Amino acid sequence: MKIGVITLNPTIGNIKENLHKITCHIKDAIKENYDILIFPELSISGYPPKDLLLFPEFIKSEQKALQSLKKFSNSVAILIGAVSRSQRNSSKLYNGAHFIYKGKIQTYHKRFLPCYDVFDEPRYFNVGQNAPLFKWKAKKIGITICEDIWGEESNLKARYEGIPAPLKKLQKSKPDLIINLSASPFESGKDKIRQRLVTNISKKLNVPFIYVNQSGANDELIFDGAVIATSKSKCIYHSADFKEARHSFIFKNNKTLECLSQPQKLTSWRDNLSQALITGIHDYVIKSGFQKVVLGISGGIDSAVVASLAVKALGSQNVTGLIIPSQYTSSESVRDANTLCKHLGIAKHVISLNDLHQMMRRQFSDDFNSVLSDLTEQNIQARLRGNIIMAYANNSNALMLNTSNKSELAMGYGTLYGDLGGALAVLGDVTKDFVYELARHINHNKIIIPENIIHRAPSAELKPNQKDEDSLPIYECLDPQVKKTLTKKILPKNKIDKFSAEQFKKALFINEYKRRQAPPILKVSTQAFGFGWRLPIVNRYL
Amino acid sequence: MKIGVITLNPTIGNIKENLHKITCHIKDAIKENYDILIFPELSISGYPPKDLLLFPEFIKSEQKALQSLKKFSNSVAILIGAVSRSQRNSSKLYNGAHFIYKGKIQTYHKRFLPCYDVFDEPRYFNVGQNAPLFKWKAKKIGITICEDIWGEESNLKARYEGIPAPLKKLQKSKPDLIINLSASPFESGKDKIRQRLVTNISKKLNVPFIYVNQSGANDELIFDGAVIATSKSKCIYHSADFKEARHSFIFKNNKTLECLSQPQKLTSWRDNLSQALITGIHDYVIKSGFQKVVLGISGGIDSAVVASLAVKALGSQNVTGLIIPSQYTSSESVRDANTLCKHLGIAKHVISLNDLHQMMRRQFSDDFNSVLSDLTEQNIQARLRGNIIMAYANNSNALMLNTSNKSELAMGYGTLYGDLGGALAVLGDVTKDFVYELARHINHNKIIIPENIIHRAPSAELKPNQKDEDSLPIYECLDPQVKKTLTKKILPKNKIDKFSAEQFKKALFINEYKRRQAPPILKVSTQAFGFGWRLPIVNRYL
Repeated sequence: MKIGVITLNPTIGNIKENLHKITCHIKDAIKENYDILIFPELSISGYPPKDLLLFPEFIKSEQKALQSLKKFSNSVAILIGAVSRSQRNSSKLYNGAHFIYKGKIQTYHKRFLPCYDVFDEPRYFNVGQNAPLFKWKAKKIGITICEDIWGEESNLKARYEGIPAPLKKLQKSKPDLIINLSASPFESGKDKIRQRLVTNISKKLNVPFIYVNQSGANDELIFDGAVIATSKSKCIYHSADFKEARHSFIFKNNKTLECLSQPQKLTSWRDNLSQALITGIHDYVIKSGFQKVVLGISGGIDSAVVASLAVKALGSQNVTGLIIPSQYTSSESVRDANTLCKHLGIAKHVISLNDLHQMMRRQFSDDFNSVLSDLTEQNIQARLRGNIIMAYANNSNALMLNTSNKSELAMGYGTLYGDLGGALAVLGDVTKDFVYELARHINHNKIIIPENIIHRAPSAELKPNQKDEDSLPIYECLDPQVKKTLTKKILPKNKIDKFSAEQFKKALFINEYKRRQAPPILKVSTQAFGFGWRLPIVNRYL
Repeated sequence: MKIGVITLNPTIGNIKENLHKITCHIKDAIKENYDILIFPELSISGYPPKDLLLFPEFIKSEQKALQSLKKFSNSVAILIGAVSRSQRNSSKLYNGAHFIYKGKIQTYHKRFLPCYDVFDEPRYFNVGQNAPLFKWKAKKIGITICEDIWGEESNLKARYEGIPAPLKKLQKSKPDLIINLSASPFESGKDKIRQRLVTNISKKLNVPFIYVNQSGANDELIFDGAVIATSKSKCIYHSADFKEARHSFIFKNNKTLECLSQPQKLTSWRDNLSQALITGIHDYVIKSGFQKVVLGISGGIDSAVVASLAVKALGSQNVTGLIIPSQYTSSESVRDANTLCKHLGIAKHVISLNDLHQMMRRQFSDDFNSVLSDLTEQNIQARLRGNIIMAYANNSNALMLNTSNKSELAMGYGTLYGDLGGALAVLGDVTKDFVYELARHINHNKIIIPENIIHRAPSAELKPNQKDEDSLPIYECLDPQVKKTLTKKILPKNKIDKFSAEQFKKALFINEYKRRQAPPILKVSTQAFGFGWRLPIVNRYL
């Protein structure tokens, strides 16, 4: 039995194009005599479709697309994730896995519906009741969807109390093969945990297991395109290169799997993180219908890393750097920014902020008869820069990339509508230590980012001799605390460098208003700011 | 039996202050010989506490505050909404109602946990299993929490399939009185539906009913402070003036309720809508620790209405209007803007945009050697205005109010980081027709908003002779369609004025990126943009 596994990269809502991709894969597979073709969770709508699922017309189109696959099913069996609608009540939806063969559809409904972090599945779906088993050619195929295999882990178990676990059911029915269809967002390090989980289940149930994830990215979420296969309780295949591809296996009658493909796996966590961000930039820009991006190049590390990743994602011809020095910008910064652009081979423009800044300052003293505070002065500069970059973006049909990192966002170190602007926050889930790791990784073979950028003390250069560490705890102390607080929801008890525990807590919570208006953030950790972090803005837990 | 009902207005996360308020109410009630005092849903944390519930320290403080109420319970029985923690598993939470009497606590757990619109309760809470009944002095008190009384309505029923309905249980146990503790967000017209629901339940179960809602506002959500009481199957009391107060009743042995207070009810839907927005502004600003607001006064209707509401919320001494004309601003607009500020008695400043605009334009042609497109030109002006208003806000410790309306937000008619900026979108859930209704309502007794502002055709005045209806369908066609699409999730089939059905759909969906970075929006309708509207940004369902 020849099995094809497709790490589909659908675009949310683009039912027509997603269906076209799916049918192309099916036609190719038929030509090559595949017996069964497997697609990930919610392949037709893309994941997560969010409130599109509340539009009846959307569901109707999606169901029509699903039904249209029947016509291929005399030649090949198709297993695909797609919405399922209750026959008695059309507003009742399930997250379904559809097994299509000889014009008939068998459907399983996901049981464990995640409702934490970025996941809102009970908002849309009902808990499934169907048996997680398809019968096909005297074989029993066990089927699970994403969270179904995670929900019995100790950290999640309590959430799904009272819902019969699909794996428990499968343990009893002794299937010949288990499959998991996923749309499981990338997190640094999750690949190893996932491989262990799949292997353990395969061992426990004594059955070969095929796991398939989506690839590509949709808004904040990145999918690594993982395919994991086990045979005789061992992991025999683990591919994950974020790309849409077909992976092939032979299922033998003695209940073993053999690989026909070569797994594409990135070797280090830096490779993975870097490729995740590149994928995130690429898909956000391209799926939005753009090709080009523009960003402010400050001569600092964050914009250097974002520019380098953008070049890998879109090509140097599609990236423009704007260097916008003010009176506080050091010549060192301007020099390094220019060198970076040269190394990257990207177009750059230098535009001085001085005249605009001075004029605005003058108008304040003339029209308002008031002196600008230190903070106002800094914000004005950042917002003028933002205006220039956005104007350039608007004028050249490009998207502005945001360069804020997670450590800054945690402490609210940034100017709303200034450096906090942009279409996508590439490093919004990357703490400063990891920004440096990425920079060194980018420079691994060849110096792209001038070494001086990596070695200088970080500064916003919005007032004379300013350093980040004048206003923030040093990053060596800040970064671990940000990770701990976000992931474990533990607030500090002791000082973090110069910040008291109370100062840290206050800075974290009181700056929620900035994060709420920040661009979408590419999620690469267990807990990113953005859609999976839902704090009140007016919050006096200070 | 003397009953006190408190429409508490807690601040999210401010456990200390909320507890202080609660104990003051309790002490007063003890002095005045109340037998029982009733507080709304989640009174100690405020509603919605969102991800604060994931911080174990927060839960610990909240539980400590709850326990501290025991010491008053020899003198008065206390019924209060607060988080409940499972004794076996401290990470398992419930949305609880606590009946505290003589040092003992009986607890009921909410069963119907809403997971739609702005509600995410299954993200935090487990479904309750306890009986919805407290025994007290040979009386049976039936208890429900918010959604518990809504969940059997036809539009929600399917969501709670399989969960035993609290009201079904209560019908069997024949309580002497039913109470509902709510934190139910304001929506225009919901008060009537709520009164009908409460009365119907009271009739069906043949039992008096007391309903209590929170008052005030937290971020996007506004609470009308409703108290509804029924006796002998009739509504005998319906108060709702958005304010924290104590409402008093006598419960007689023949199972009837008598009112001791005078209900405070606003008479028209315009009064309600207007008061809701005033409450929303007031609480956002004051609970954030600010007193002052600033906004751009364009001479148009939106900013005129926002300024008028802000004056009612905060007093004229706390509102500043900035008039920032560009070369495209008509003298009519400047005149009307000045008159408005005079009528409102607010401070105003006039600052010309011309020089900044010209300089920016010049820099583009000098440094980029490029001509600005029409759209870029408009955006630059809007963003320079945004920068000026934000600088003023930063410099005078004020919050910038946003003046975008719902019709504009739906079509993406506004400039990100320009007129789409601000701390709070006061009219973000108000379609243009209702903005006019509000304007006329404000002018009801005395002309505050110059009549010319109400009668002129709306214009952004960002290019010569610009009118909103050059770029948008006329509001008479646009407003009903926006309401229909948002509330019913129905996309148009026919033309909306000059827009084709496809153009409308595209404008709605493609501008999600702007709304994602817009300020929090005061929710006053069934479906507002903001937290309860979750669309993908990269969405090709176009």
